[in-house]
Amino acid sequence: MKTAQEYIESLRGLKRELYVLGERVEDFTEHPILRPSLNALAKTYEMAHEPRCAELFVRQGLDGECVNCFTSLHHSTHDLLNKVKALRLLGQETGTCFQRCVGWDALNALESTTFEMDRALGTPYHDRFLDYLRYVQQQDLVCNGAMTDVKGNRRLRPGQQADPDLYLHVVEQRPDGIVVRGAKAHQTGAVFSHEIIVMPTLGLRAEEKSYAVAFAIPSDAKGVLHILGRQSCDTRKLEGSSMDVGNATFGAHEALVVFDDVFVPNERVFMNGEWQFSGMLVERFAGYHRQSYGGCKVGMGDVLIGAAAAAAEYAGVDDASHVRRKLAEMTHLNETLFACGIACSVAGTALPSGTYLVDQLLANVCKQNVTRFPYEIARLAEDLAGGLMVTLPSERDLNHPEIGRFVDKYLRGAADIPTADRMRILRLIENLTLGAAAVAYRTESMHGAGSPEAQVIMIARLSNLEGKKALARRLACVNLMDSHCIS
Amino acid sequence: MKTAQEYIESLRGLKRELYVLGERVEDFTEHPILRPSLNALAKTYEMAHEPRCAELFVRQGLDGECVNCFTSLHHSTHDLLNKVKALRLLGQETGTCFQRCVGWDALNALESTTFEMDRALGTPYHDRFLDYLRYVQQQDLVCNGAMTDVKGNRRLRPGQQADPDLYLHVVEQRPDGIVVRGAKAHQTGAVFSHEIIVMPTLGLRAEEKSYAVAFAIPSDAKGVLHILGRQSCDTRKLEGSSMDVGNATFGAHEALVVFDDVFVPNERVFMNGEWQFSGMLVERFAGYHRQSYGGCKVGMGDVLIGAAAAAAEYAGVDDASHVRRKLAEMTHLNETLFACGIACSVAGTALPSGTYLVDQLLANVCKQNVTRFPYEIARLAEDLAGGLMVTLPSERDLNHPEIGRFVDKYLRGAADIPTADRMRILRLIENLTLGAAAVAYRTESMHGAGSPEAQVIMIARLSNLEGKKALARRLACVNLMDSHCIS
Amino acid sequence: MKTAQEYIESLRGLKRELYVLGERVEDFTEHPILRPSLNALAKTYEMAHEPRCAELFVRQGLDGECVNCFTSLHHSTHDLLNKVKALRLLGQETGTCFQRCVGWDALNALESTTFEMDRALGTPYHDRFLDYLRYVQQQDLVCNGAMTDVKGNRRLRPGQQADPDLYLHVVEQRPDGIVVRGAKAHQTGAVFSHEIIVMPTLGLRAEEKSYAVAFAIPSDAKGVLHILGRQSCDTRKLEGSSMDVGNATFGAHEALVVFDDVFVPNERVFMNGEWQFSGMLVERFAGYHRQSYGGCKVGMGDVLIGAAAAAAEYAGVDDASHVRRKLAEMTHLNETLFACGIACSVAGTALPSGTYLVDQLLANVCKQNVTRFPYEIARLAEDLAGGLMVTLPSERDLNHPEIGRFVDKYLRGAADIPTADRMRILRLIENLTLGAAAVAYRTESMHGAGSPEAQVIMIARLSNLEGKKALARRLACVNLMDSHCIS
Amino acid sequence: MKTAQEYIESLRGLKRELYVLGERVEDFTEHPILRPSLNALAKTYEMAHEPRCAELFVRQGLDGECVNCFTSLHHSTHDLLNKVKALRLLGQETGTCFQRCVGWDALNALESTTFEMDRALGTPYHDRFLDYLRYVQQQDLVCNGAMTDVKGNRRLRPGQQADPDLYLHVVEQRPDGIVVRGAKAHQTGAVFSHEIIVMPTLGLRAEEKSYAVAFAIPSDAKGVLHILGRQSCDTRKLEGSSMDVGNATFGAHEALVVFDDVFVPNERVFMNGEWQFSGMLVERFAGYHRQSYGGCKVGMGDVLIGAAAAAAEYAGVDDASHVRRKLAEMTHLNETLFACGIACSVAGTALPSGTYLVDQLLANVCKQNVTRFPYEIARLAEDLAGGLMVTLPSERDLNHPEIGRFVDKYLRGAADIPTADRMRILRLIENLTLGAAAVAYRTESMHGAGSPEAQVIMIARLSNLEGKKALARRLACVNLMDSHCIS
Repeated sequence: MKTAQEYIESLRGLKRELYVLGERVEDFTEHPILRPSLNALAKTYEMAHEPRCAELFVRQGLDGECVNCFTSLHHSTHDLLNKVKALRLLGQETGTCFQRCVGWDALNALESTTFEMDRALGTPYHDRFLDYLRYVQQQDLVCNGAMTDVKGNRRLRPGQQADPDLYLHVVEQRPDGIVVRGAKAHQTGAVFSHEIIVMPTLGLRAEEKSYAVAFAIPSDAKGVLHILGRQSCDTRKLEGSSMDVGNATFGAHEALVVFDDVFVPNERVFMNGEWQFSGMLVERFAGYHRQSYGGCKVGMGDVLIGAAAAAAEYAGVDDASHVRRKLAEMTHLNETLFACGIACSVAGTALPSGTYLVDQLLANVCKQNVTRFPYEIARLAEDLAGGLMVTLPSERDLNHPEIGRFVDKYLRGAADIPTADRMRILRLIENLTLGAAAVAYRTESMHGAGSPEAQVIMIARLSNLEGKKALARRLACVNLMDSHCIS
Repeated sequence: MKTAQEYIESLRGLKRELYVLGERVEDFTEHPILRPSLNALAKTYEMAHEPRCAELFVRQGLDGECVNCFTSLHHSTHDLLNKVKALRLLGQETGTCFQRCVGWDALNALESTTFEMDRALGTPYHDRFLDYLRYVQQQDLVCNGAMTDVKGNRRLRPGQQADPDLYLHVVEQRPDGIVVRGAKAHQTGAVFSHEIIVMPTLGLRAEEKSYAVAFAIPSDAKGVLHILGRQSCDTRKLEGSSMDVGNATFGAHEALVVFDDVFVPNERVFMNGEWQFSGMLVERFAGYHRQSYGGCKVGMGDVLIGAAAAAAEYAGVDDASHVRRKLAEMTHLNETLFACGIACSVAGTALPSGTYLVDQLLANVCKQNVTRFPYEIARLAEDLAGGLMVTLPSERDLNHPEIGRFVDKYLRGAADIPTADRMRILRLIENLTLGAAAVAYRTESMHGAGSPEAQVIMIARLSNLEGKKALARRLACVNLMDSHCIS
Repeated sequence: MKTAQEYIESLRGLKRELYVLGERVEDFTEHPILRPSLNALAKTYEMAHEPRCAELFVRQGLDGECVNCFTSLHHSTHDLLNKVKALRLLGQETGTCFQRCVGWDALNALESTTFEMDRALGTPYHDRFLDYLRYVQQQDLVCNGAMTDVKGNRRLRPGQQADPDLYLHVVEQRPDGIVVRGAKAHQTGAVFSHEIIVMPTLGLRAEEKSYAVAFAIPSDAKGVLHILGRQSCDTRKLEGSSMDVGNATFGAHEALVVFDDVFVPNERVFMNGEWQFSGMLVERFAGYHRQSYGGCKVGMGDVLIGAAAAAAEYAGVDDASHVRRKLAEMTHLNETLFACGIACSVAGTALPSGTYLVDQLLANVCKQNVTRFPYEIARLAEDLAGGLMVTLPSERDLNHPEIGRFVDKYLRGAADIPTADRMRILRLIENLTLGAAAVAYRTESMHGAGSPEAQVIMIARLSNLEGKKALARRLACVNLMDSHCIS
Repeated sequence: MKTAQEYIESLRGLKRELYVLGERVEDFTEHPILRPSLNALAKTYEMAHEPRCAELFVRQGLDGECVNCFTSLHHSTHDLLNKVKALRLLGQETGTCFQRCVGWDALNALESTTFEMDRALGTPYHDRFLDYLRYVQQQDLVCNGAMTDVKGNRRLRPGQQADPDLYLHVVEQRPDGIVVRGAKAHQTGAVFSHEIIVMPTLGLRAEEKSYAVAFAIPSDAKGVLHILGRQSCDTRKLEGSSMDVGNATFGAHEALVVFDDVFVPNERVFMNGEWQFSGMLVERFAGYHRQSYGGCKVGMGDVLIGAAAAAAEYAGVDDASHVRRKLAEMTHLNETLFACGIACSVAGTALPSGTYLVDQLLANVCKQNVTRFPYEIARLAEDLAGGLMVTLPSERDLNHPEIGRFVDKYLRGAADIPTADRMRILRLIENLTLGAAAVAYRTESMHGAGSPEAQVIMIARLSNLEGKKALARRLACVNLMDSHCIS
C-alpha cells in the first residue's frame, strides 16, 4: 500500500493533456486550484497507514495480501458496512468529496458483471478483469470510474443523436484492441487518477452494440484530454488566503474527459458489444455508488453541523432553544442518511461471483434521501450562520494596516473568540453551502450516482406493489373465502 | 410455545374488572369491539408455529429451549435485526398494532438494568427477574409493559402533583411485598395480557424514591381495573358488517389500567426505591421500543401502500404518472423507516449482562421519523383513495333490496371489479387513516415510546456536538498550528 | 332573508327519498346523525341577521334588495375578499363544513358562462338563469351545486364507460324539457338543500354532447334519491353523549344523489349540448371553490389551533418552548392559506357579464396548499394533544357510579381544570383529525374542488413558462445583441 | 425624477472611503465587482421613465409632484399592493436584489413613528423628517436604510457588551447635533446610496437610551467607512467573461459601514434617546421589509424557474412528466410567496399619520415562507439543471483554439441550440443558487428583515391564541351553559 507521499509522487510521472480555465497546465500536482483535491485523495492513502483506521481501510486483496480498501472487493455485508463507515470518516476528515469511490464501485460492479456475462455468453472478460484488479491492488492505484456520458439531447437514444459521439462508442475494432471516441462528463478526481475505467451510461439495446463497451486505460493514454470544470469560488484558491477559501487543505474537482480516438488493448477490454449486460453493469455500479453517499455525505454533514454549532457558539447563541432544536434537526437528518447507508449494506446479498451487492431498494432509498436532506441541512446551517457568512470582508481587509482594526472590532462575536476564528468558521460554512465544497455537498448529492428521477424509477420498480396489494386485499376480505373472513 | 388457540383459552381463566363504554364486561374474549385485538395478539402465537417464520419467531430461552421470540432476550445484533423483520411481517399480516412488543421490550430492559443495579447497589433483583423471565418463557405469556403514568400536570414533578397518585407509587412497604397505587395510561393490549410489568415513567430523583418501582403481577391481581379507551369508529364493530370496519379480523385496544392499592409480593419486585436506576430503565425500554416502530409501522405502511395501489387500480388510474410517483414516494418513505429500524439494530452493542441494546442515537432517529412519515404516507393514501373513501354508503345500503342496485351501479370503478371489492379496499384505507387502525398508525407512531420532543432531546444529547465542532475547527484552521494548516 | 328557524321549517315541507345506513328516513331534519349538519347550514342564515356580521353576510340582490350573500353575485374584488372573510368566520363558528358554498359558487359560475354562451351561440340561457337566480334570492334558498359525477373507470371518457350513466347525461329530449339520468357523488349538504344545480364534471368534446348539461331542479323532484355517506365516527351521534362526539352542535354530511330519469322543464335548463362551454363552466366553478377553501378551512384551522392550545394548557405544558413553536407553526401554515384566499380574491377580474372571477393561478395555488397544510396542522395538533386523545374512556365511563371517580381522578391534568373539560377538548381534536369533521378538514381539503393533480395541471398551464424563459434568456445574454449585453 | 444616467452621474461627486478586497477603491462606479450592483439600482430609475411602468413606479410626493415610488409614502392598501408588484417586476428584470427597498421602508417607518412619538412625547421629529423626505423626493435619492448592528455577543444586551460600540450609539451630545459611533452590517446597496438612514436594531430599554438613535446623513459624511463584503464567485466579475458570471449586467453588494465618530446635525436627527419608540420603529420597518420579499424574491424566482425550464428544454427533457411537475411545483411555491405579499398589503391599515402599514401577522407569515420556499425552488432548479451546472468548463475553454471544439461538441444538448447558449443558462442558474445572486436569493431570503426566529416570535405574539382557545372551548361545550350546548 502506497503512502500519501508515494501516491503524489507516482502521479508526477504521468503525462496530462489538461486545461484549466482555458490554459494548458503541466505541473498539475501543484496547481493551487487542484492541489486541495490531490490532498483529499492522498488522505485515502494516509488513512490506510493510521493504526486506528486499519480495520476500516485495510483489506485482503485477491492474493490474500493487505490492500487499500479502495481497491478491494466486498466479500460480506460486513465489508459493505465498513465501506460506509470508512467513507463517513473520510468525509469528516476532509469536509469534501475525496473522489476515490467511483473507482472502487466500478471495480466491484465489473467483477460480478463480467463473471455472469462470461457464464452466460462464454466471453473471456472475468479473468482479464481479475488480472487488471490484481494490478490495481498491487500498485495501489486510483481508478477514475467513468460512466456518465455527455448525452446530448436526452430525448434521443445514443444512436439517434445528431452527433453519434455524444455517447462514447467503439469506432474501430482492431485485432489487438478497440478504438473509442466520446467524452465522459463530471469526472470526479479524474486528473489525479492513474487509471480510467470506462462503462456504459445506461442499459442498451441490440442496435446500440457499439455503445456497449467497458474497459480500462492508463489516464495518460494517447488521445485522452482533461478539461477542468469550474466550481463556485474556484479562483479564491489563487488568492493565497487560507481563510477566504473556507477549507484551505481539501477540495475536489471534476473534469470533462475527452476520448479522441483512444486505443484500448484487448487485455483491458471488459465488454465489447454485449449490450445485454450493460444494464446490469450500470445498475450495480449505481447501487454501490448510491450506498456510498450514505457514508461520505454524512461525514460532510458532520462537519457542517459542527461548523454551524461553532458559529452559533461564537455568536453567543448556542444556548437559545431554537438553535439547539435546529442542530438536533440537522443531526436527525444526517443520521437518517447514515441509517440508510447502513441498512442497504447489511441487507446486501452475495452475487454468483461471491462478491456482495447492496440491497438495491434500500440503496436507492438512501440516495433519494441524499437528494433532499443535505439541502435542508445546508439551509439550517445558513440559518444558524447568520447573514455575516456572505457579507464578511476578505482576509486582506482583516489584515489591512488601516481598516483591519475596524474589521476585528466590529465583527467580533463572543468577546473571547478571535474575530479571525469566527471568520474562518463562517467561511467554512460558505464553502460547504455556496462555495467549492457545495459542489460536493449539494450538486453531487443531487446528481451523483444518478439524478433523483433515476431513483424514483428504481424505487417504483422494486417496490413489489403486487405483493402489497395482496396484503391489502386479504385484510379487506376482498376474497371473502379467505379463512379469516369467513368466521 | 402456545398455539393461538391455546393462548385464547389461557385467557378465559382470568378474572377481569373491565369496563367498556361504561359497562362492565365479563366475557372479554368475545366482545366484538375487543375481539379483533385478541386476533392480532393471537397472530404472534400463530407465527411461531408457521415453519416459514420459525427463523424469526422462535428463539432459545434461558434454558436453551425453544421459546416464542416475544419472550426472549436479544443476544446479538442479529437478534435485534430479526426483531425488526418479525415486526414488519406481523404488521403486514395484521394491518394494525399486535400489542406484544411492549412486554418484549420491558423484559429486555429489565434484564440488563437489574443486572447493573445489583452490581452497583448489591440488590437482589436480577435473579428474581430471571426466575420471572423463565416463568414467562415456559408459560409463553403476554406481558403488558406498563410504563406511561397519567402524569397530571406535566409542569410538575411526580411528588409535586396535587394528587400524589398521578404517578404510580408505593404506598406501603410490607415484609412480604409492597402495595402500589396509581394508573398507567394508553396500555396497549392490556386486556389480553397475562402479566403486567410496571416500570417508572421517567428518570427520578432521590426525593422521589417511592415512585422508583418496578414489578410484575398477574393481570387479574386484586385491585387492578381496566377501562377501555375509545377508538375512532369503535362501535362499527358492533354493527356486524365485515365491510364497514375496513379490517374485520384484526385490531388493537388501549386501556387505562388502575392500580387501586395492589399488593406485589417481593419475588416479583424488581426495583423498589433505587431511583438512580430509573432513568436507565426508562431509556433502555424507550430505545427498544423506538426500534420496534422501525418494523411494525413499516408493515402497516406496506398494507396502506398496497391498499392505495389497489384503490387506484380499481378506479382505473394506476397508470397515471402522478399515481405511480405517489406510490413510489410512499414506498420511499416507508423503506426509510425500515432502514432506520435496521440500522439501530445492527449498530447495537452488548451490555454488561450480555444482552444487546440498540444504538440509542439511531433508535431515536428512527422513532422521530416515525412521528412524521406515516402521516405523509397516510396523506398520500388519502389522495389516491379519492373522496369516495369518506362518502361511501354503508354495506347495508349496498345490500338493500331497493337501493342496493344504485349503489352497485354508481360506485363501480373499473367495470370488472365488483363494487363491493372497491368499497372494501376504501374502507381499509379509511380504517388506517381515520378509523380504528389510525390510532395505531398515526397516534401510536406519534406518541408511542415517547412523544416527538422526547426524541429531539435524546438526539440533541447524543449528537456529540463537541466532536463535530472539533472537526469543523480543524478544517477551518481555527488553530493555525495544525500541521495541515501550516504548509 | 330567512332566519335560521324559517330555513329549518322551510325544509319540513320537502319530500325526500333518503337512505341512512340502509334505512329509509322520513323525518330528516331531526335525525341525530344529520341534525348537526342542518345546524351548520342554519348558521349561514343566522349570521345574516347578526348586526356585527351584516357587512359580510348581507349583499344586494339582482333587484337591489338585501339578500343573503350565499345567493349573491360577486360585483367586485371587494365582494370576493368578503366571501373569504365570511367563510373563515363561519368555519370558526361551526368547526366544520357549513355546506352552502358549492351552491354559491355554482350560481356565480353559471351567471357568467351562460352570458358568454348566449353571446357566442345565440342560446337563451342567461335570462333563464337570471330568473332562476331571482327566485333563489327571493326565497333565500340553499342550492346544492352538483358537479362531481361518479366517473366509473377514470381512464375512460364519459361515452366510453361500460355503463353510459356513470356520467350524468340527457336520455330524452322533450318539447317541454329534458330527462336526465346519472348520479352525483360526494354531495355536500344535499339533504338540506332546496335546490340542486347540476353541472358537467369536466370539459367535454363534440361527441359527448349529451353529457353537456346544466340545470336546476327542486331537491324533491321526482326520481331524485339521496343515499347518505358514512363518516368516521358517524354513529357516535346516536349515543346521546355531547362529549364523545367532540362537536355536538355542528357537522356536515355528504350524499350520493341519484337521478333516476328526472324531468327538467326547459325554464330550468342552462346548458343542453353546448359542449364548447362545459370546460369554462367547470373551470370557473372550480376557481371559485378553490378560493372558498382559503376561507372556510382557515376558520376550521383556527378552531383546531385553539383546541390544541387548550389541550396543552390543560396538560400544563403551554409554556414549553416546543409547544409554543408548534402553535406558531400551525398559525403560520393556517395564515398562509388565508393569504392565498385573500390574494386570489383581490387579484380577481371582471368577466364580460360584469361578475368578478378570482385569479385562477392564485386560486389553484390556494387549493394546492389546502391539500397539504391542514394535514400538517392536524399532525401538529395530534402531537400537542398527546396519546390520550385516542385512549380516553367514554363519557359514560366518566359518569359511571363506580369507576367514574377513577376516570376523573386519573385523567385530571392541571388540577384546576375539570377532567370533563379536558376530555371535551381532546374529543374536539379527535373530531377534527380522525372523526366526523376530519372528513371536512382533511378529505375535503384534499379532494374538494378537484384533487391535487387537477391543481398541478392548472398551475402548469397558467405558469407562463415561455415568459419566464424569456426573462432568463435575457439576463443570461443568450441573445448577445440585447443592448445590456453589448456594453 | 432622475434618469438612470443622471443617477449614476450624481454619484460621481460623492467621496467614498471604500475598501474592496483589502484595497482602497476610488472610482467606485466603475469597479467591475461593483458595477452590476450599480446597474441594478439604476434600473429603479429607468423603470420610472418607462411609460408601461409609470402606474407602478411613479407616485405623488409630499407636494403633489411626481416622484419615484422608492421615495414615496404609502397612502392606501393600493399603494402597498403596487409596491409588491413593482418589486416583482424589478426582480424579473434584474434577477437580483436591486437594493433600494431598505431606504423606502425606512422612510415609511420613520414617518409614522416620528408622528406618534411627537404626539406622545412632544418631540420635534416629525416636521424634521418631512423636510428631509421632501429633500429626498426632490433630489430623487437612494437611501441606505441602516438598521442591523453588528451585535457582538448575541446573548448580551447592547450595554452589556465588552465593547460598547458593537451597537451604534451616541457618544457625544452637542448643541448643534450628535456624534455617533458603531457599525452597521450587511448594508445592501450602501456604496451607491446618496444617504444613510440609521435606525436602532431592536427595541430598547430605559438604560439603553444612548442606543435609541435615528438619523440621516449623506453617505460621504466624514467618518463613514465602507468595507465591501465578499460574495460567492465575486472575482469572476474581474475575468471579463460575460458568460461565466451568469448575470453579466446585474448584481448587488453588501458592505460593512463603519461610523467612526460621525457628526449628525440636529435637523437630521429623528430619535435621540426616546427608547420607548425604538421597538415601534424596528417593527414597522421590519413589517414593510418582510412584505417587500413577497415581491422581489418572487421576481427572482420567476427568473430561476425560467432558467430551469430553459435548461430542461436545451437538454431535450422539457416534455418529461417529472420535469413538468417540478416546474409546476416551483411555480406553486413562488406564487404562494406572491400571495403572501399581496395579502399582507391589502390587509394593511392606516396609522395615525395617515400612512398605511402592512398587516403585521401576514407580513411575518410572508417572510417566514421566504426563509423556506426559495431554498426548495433552488433545490428543484439544481435538480433540473443537472450536474453540468457545476462542472462546466470556462468560457475561455469554449473559445480556446485547440480544445474549444471539444467543449462545443460534447456539451451540446438539443442539436439546434448553440452550446454557448446552454452554458449561459446554466451559469445563470449557478449564479442564483451558488454564486453572487445566491446571496440575494438565499441568504437575504433567510436573514433579510430579520432571521426566521424573529418571525416565529412575531407570529406567536400576533396569533391571538386566547381567541382561538375560546372558539374551541365553545364548540367543545366546555361551558355547558352555552345556549347551543343545552338543547
